[in-house]
Amino acid sequence: MSDPATAARAGDRRALARLLTAVENRTPAAEAALRVLYPYAGRAHLVGITGAPGTGKSTLVAALIEEVRRGGRSVAVVAVDPTSPITGGAILGDRVRMQARATDPDVFIRSMASRGHAGGLAAASVTAAAVLDAVGFEVVFLETVGTGQSEVEVAAAADTTVVVEAPEMGDEIQAIKAGLLEVADLVVVNKGDRPGAQRAAAQLRAMLSAGVAPARPGRPAPKRPEVLITTATTGEGVAELLAATERHRARQLADGDDRTRLARAEAELMAALEHRLRARLRDPRRLAAGEAALRAIADHVLDPYTAADRLLATLAPE
Amino acid sequence: MSDPATAARAGDRRALARLLTAVENRTPAAEAALRVLYPYAGRAHLVGITGAPGTGKSTLVAALIEEVRRGGRSVAVVAVDPTSPITGGAILGDRVRMQARATDPDVFIRSMASRGHAGGLAAASVTAAAVLDAVGFEVVFLETVGTGQSEVEVAAAADTTVVVEAPEMGDEIQAIKAGLLEVADLVVVNKGDRPGAQRAAAQLRAMLSAGVAPARPGRPAPKRPEVLITTATTGEGVAELLAATERHRARQLADGDDRTRLARAEAELMAALEHRLRARLRDPRRLAAGEAALRAIADHVLDPYTAADRLLATLAPE
Repeated sequence: MSDPATAARAGDRRALARLLTAVENRTPAAEAALRVLYPYAGRAHLVGITGAPGTGKSTLVAALIEEVRRGGRSVAVVAVDPTSPITGGAILGDRVRMQARATDPDVFIRSMASRGHAGGLAAASVTAAAVLDAVGFEVVFLETVGTGQSEVEVAAAADTTVVVEAPEMGDEIQAIKAGLLEVADLVVVNKGDRPGAQRAAAQLRAMLSAGVAPARPGRPAPKRPEVLITTATTGEGVAELLAATERHRARQLADGDDRTRLARAEAELMAALEHRLRARLRDPRRLAAGEAALRAIADHVLDPYTAADRLLATLAPE
Repeated sequence: MSDPATAARAGDRRALARLLTAVENRTPAAEAALRVLYPYAGRAHLVGITGAPGTGKSTLVAALIEEVRRGGRSVAVVAVDPTSPITGGAILGDRVRMQARATDPDVFIRSMASRGHAGGLAAASVTAAAVLDAVGFEVVFLETVGTGQSEVEVAAAADTTVVVEAPEMGDEIQAIKAGLLEVADLVVVNKGDRPGAQRAAAQLRAMLSAGVAPARPGRPAPKRPEVLITTATTGEGVAELLAATERHRARQLADGDDRTRLARAEAELMAALEHRLRARLRDPRRLAAGEAALRAIADHVLDPYTAADRLLATLAPE
């Protein structure tokens, strides 16, 4: 038997699935595999797809998979699922629909639970995407329900971030949209066959040309994302969307813009550091000190910063 | 002029507002203030209110504020806003409605942006709640749009976690619900005057009595949260909801159950540790090494774990 990383790279899908579970749980086996796989990553086009519930993101991702396959490239999906590890997202209709591609060896779909990730969801998803990249998938979609901080971070960590809207969303959704738009490279109004789709697209274009966010000194100029209309259920506009993601990627490579890659690297590094710190806190030699610190914070006799400074003094490298 | 912590404790609301901004940004001034304030925290009842967009959470929080005030207690709200720091949540109608209490000195409302928190949103919100607790507010509501990982963590960090539902939500919302219900101490079907409210409550009760999650060895028994119906716009059921949160708190204190307090302490400690690590990485003496590590990870010549181990070796206490 070869090691999991080599097996996954050789096309063993069960080995890949087990490896991704190990990555989610940050096991020592996952670390060893990552050391092997990391040099092979960096080739895939990582596309984040995010939007509020009800915009039809999963159906759109399913349509994008078909489109990528029509072009002959292999494709993987990391779907960050808002449901719990237990109650699972596999029951969702959209997820089932995607399984239509279950027998295609050049399609791989992975759902990740959105809670319980040591070191954070964003880092775990990004690492999972790096694994799929390293084993040879040419396009990797990172699909999230973009209403939470972590989920927006996941989408923003992609090379190209697509924010999905739908016509006729409520007020609270509008507000969420404003936050999302700041991370968008492309904006899609899905459910394009519904009344109001053209109007929603026009409003978004006006909003975006006025500037989602004012330019700030020392910061890169705000994005001016293109607005497209799709109807994922019929496939209308999906080829154009995929082409737009490719244009974005080509521009990014031509500009030598590696901010997203550095941001991804920082998220992964911080997650690894935090993982190491947590492990050190749980080391039997330090467990009593760590527990005493937690108890003291909980009892409000010690503030977290003083506790952190004291613990760091005992966390010297071994 | 007294220091900000003392001024905030003496009732200076502008000093309090500035202090909370410092807490959001984790400035050195905030650390100093926290050292002063921390011993005074631990008295308030921290109530998390979470739910999907469109369930009427903010209106419910506004109604709860009125109810708490009717009982004579002081109340603060930390509203974790899904919108960006720039486009802001202050334009939302519900937030404006809450401002009706703006002239009441025993009510304080604070919106927090959901992105850009060094050390994470959950920790920043929990620390803000600790400050409000320390300056004397008797009830602190932590309101989040509960569809993301961080937002669920915020709500779950409260003493009492209330999950808000509404009748007639779509499929994707149903799935989100399953994840949320695991952290619920109380479940509320809001918009109780809509058709289907009673049926939704009955379904939730059936779902909850069947067990949201199976019991696992070594884990506490799954919660069996009470299900209530409210109509926040008319105030119907709001007094009962507040009473239920108080019963939950009383049971928790009687049982000596301090798991939520220890979990909060751990979140705050990890955030403080991460903050210290980030600061050390940005220390001029180490900046070059940190940037080289990021570049190497981004270029896939170094995996994050190896980079973390190397950096930790240079992060020895000073």
